[in-house]
Amino acid sequence: MSQAAIDGNHGSGRYPAASLVDFCAALYRAYGMREDIAAVSARLLLEGDLLGHSTHGLALLPGYLKALADSSLRAAGDPVVENRRTVSELWHGQRLSGLWLTERAIARASDMAREHGTGTVVIKHAHHIACLAAYLEAPARAGLLVTVQSSDPSGASVAPHGGITPIMTPNPIAVGIPTGSDPIMIDISSSITANGPSQRMMKEGRRAPGIWYVDSDGHGSTDPAVAFTEPKGALLPLGGLDAGHKGFGLGLMIEAMTGGLAGFGRADPPEGWGATVFVQVIDPEAFGGLKAFARQVDQLRDASHASRPRPGVERVRLPGEGGLARKARHLRDGLALHPAIMPALRPLAVERHVPLPVESP
Amino acid sequence: MSQAAIDGNHGSGRYPAASLVDFCAALYRAYGMREDIAAVSARLLLEGDLLGHSTHGLALLPGYLKALADSSLRAAGDPVVENRRTVSELWHGQRLSGLWLTERAIARASDMAREHGTGTVVIKHAHHIACLAAYLEAPARAGLLVTVQSSDPSGASVAPHGGITPIMTPNPIAVGIPTGSDPIMIDISSSITANGPSQRMMKEGRRAPGIWYVDSDGHGSTDPAVAFTEPKGALLPLGGLDAGHKGFGLGLMIEAMTGGLAGFGRADPPEGWGATVFVQVIDPEAFGGLKAFARQVDQLRDASHASRPRPGVERVRLPGEGGLARKARHLRDGLALHPAIMPALRPLAVERHVPLPVESP
Repeated sequence: MSQAAIDGNHGSGRYPAASLVDFCAALYRAYGMREDIAAVSARLLLEGDLLGHSTHGLALLPGYLKALADSSLRAAGDPVVENRRTVSELWHGQRLSGLWLTERAIARASDMAREHGTGTVVIKHAHHIACLAAYLEAPARAGLLVTVQSSDPSGASVAPHGGITPIMTPNPIAVGIPTGSDPIMIDISSSITANGPSQRMMKEGRRAPGIWYVDSDGHGSTDPAVAFTEPKGALLPLGGLDAGHKGFGLGLMIEAMTGGLAGFGRADPPEGWGATVFVQVIDPEAFGGLKAFARQVDQLRDASHASRPRPGVERVRLPGEGGLARKARHLRDGLALHPAIMPALRPLAVERHVPLPVESP
Repeated sequence: MSQAAIDGNHGSGRYPAASLVDFCAALYRAYGMREDIAAVSARLLLEGDLLGHSTHGLALLPGYLKALADSSLRAAGDPVVENRRTVSELWHGQRLSGLWLTERAIARASDMAREHGTGTVVIKHAHHIACLAAYLEAPARAGLLVTVQSSDPSGASVAPHGGITPIMTPNPIAVGIPTGSDPIMIDISSSITANGPSQRMMKEGRRAPGIWYVDSDGHGSTDPAVAFTEPKGALLPLGGLDAGHKGFGLGLMIEAMTGGLAGFGRADPPEGWGATVFVQVIDPEAFGGLKAFARQVDQLRDASHASRPRPGVERVRLPGEGGLARKARHLRDGLALHPAIMPALRPLAVERHVPLPVESP
């Protein structure tokens, strides 16, 4: 027992990952979620925190529980397959947990890919899917190239290139790439930054390191507040004021792959916080083979590591490299949640008689 | 007949598009290219000019002819299918015209998509594929969602995020999106800018409108010369110094989809100017249906047009909107080639007894 615990003081400030998953699943269940859905959703939600995406992990749980309470996140049920061909399925997600649905969709697309080369599942009417990077490690370690894209037709915070009025969400795309060792895990929004980090920056009174926003007069800004307070501006597409047509194009591609293929989106009345999801799995064995695939990707990783770093940069890192290192550290030493998270969850847990997680010694 | 022609002066400076296609095809044939390959390649190459991508149209032809002369671009043959599953094929492109190969791959992937939902073809050992936007209009007008990605393992001009030493090509991704009217045609590199426009800017002594480059000391620069003259820096990934991990991620994704799936790339000895190509076609009818797809995409287009423009911007435009308007104008009024193009082609035409195109009246 640590001295702090003996003294009766608060603990290390860190929690064992498993106890946070249990806590999260228990809260989900306390709000009525079916046990299997709760278990998968809790594991994937904490995965965001483990990888260091602290705005897209347990920070989202209070909102999810509120959504369970008002049934905008449904507690039980199963997706309905509305259309199906050899390697494609369209699912109606029934407003079920987006985390659970997305992992199921990846499993289904993986089966199609192993047999036919690729597999694609589009999900409409899913609830929010949290951190896209959280879905990548397992399929990539199984040798599959996996892509997840999502948009949320109920929100719009990103301007088109050249415009001020926002027309779409930050529309992330995530790609898990198998290698000869740890997978590369890409998770990027098509806007320069996303809503969660911007709102946190705003609350903490910080500014962006570049022109990431456009204010309501159409001028570039480093102040996240211009996107969230009246009169509202917007988040800029990736590429910013001078090359934002590229991020705008990427965002439109993701809208087409999600809302377009789903046939549900911004042309319909908004139904609240949620996601339309595109999942695609490609089996490298159907092309040049996994071994040849990994050989090429390993060369890119090695060349990136060997690239002379810019002043102030210790070493070039591949996407996912930092995340997987953080995850390993968090699994070993426990996880210190962002200071805003536990104070938001504690009253909900107390109210529903869910035991609080115990801090690491 | 125009007054200029009657006077015996030079003409309008513009050429009818059809006469440029014929001229281009005749030059290809004069260098030995098989007739059917020459016809398709000429049409697609000029399509780049018609859409306004003047660095990726006939400007490339002198280099292509030189490659035909030294057989690094092969004049005749057919791709070999090296691996095949229900909805996937890997082609060995035999160093044939990348333009002809890519259009054939889209046709094959379209057949797979109509039957099974999606179709994917990866081509290794293709020669260069020019302007990716040139491939999009026909399949998109036929109601298909088409994606083309490419990389060239023989070159490297783009740095990884945080690095100086370049490790990859600008790696473009292009997406053709069907709508209720004209298609949306996205064609973006994963670097802030590409090699062609940078080299033209350098020759013309111009600077970029933002920090698009990193010099050999690792400092951001607006000067394209830092990427092409010793000691060399590099092109920055999309997102630039502050958010370039996103463009870096996009570039890595495209490397994985091209060189990774092909099993041929930067881990192998370079074989000269060429392309590794990823083509994917998705049939919206396999998901929510084309009509529902177009309804969502049309909403996005309308919302983009209605977005209040920034100061100095007349109107928000969708990707491809400017290109298709230019194409219509060029088809009606003739096409004025970039001033550097005809002087480079004229001596080659004269040497091979290919008649020069006649200017529009």
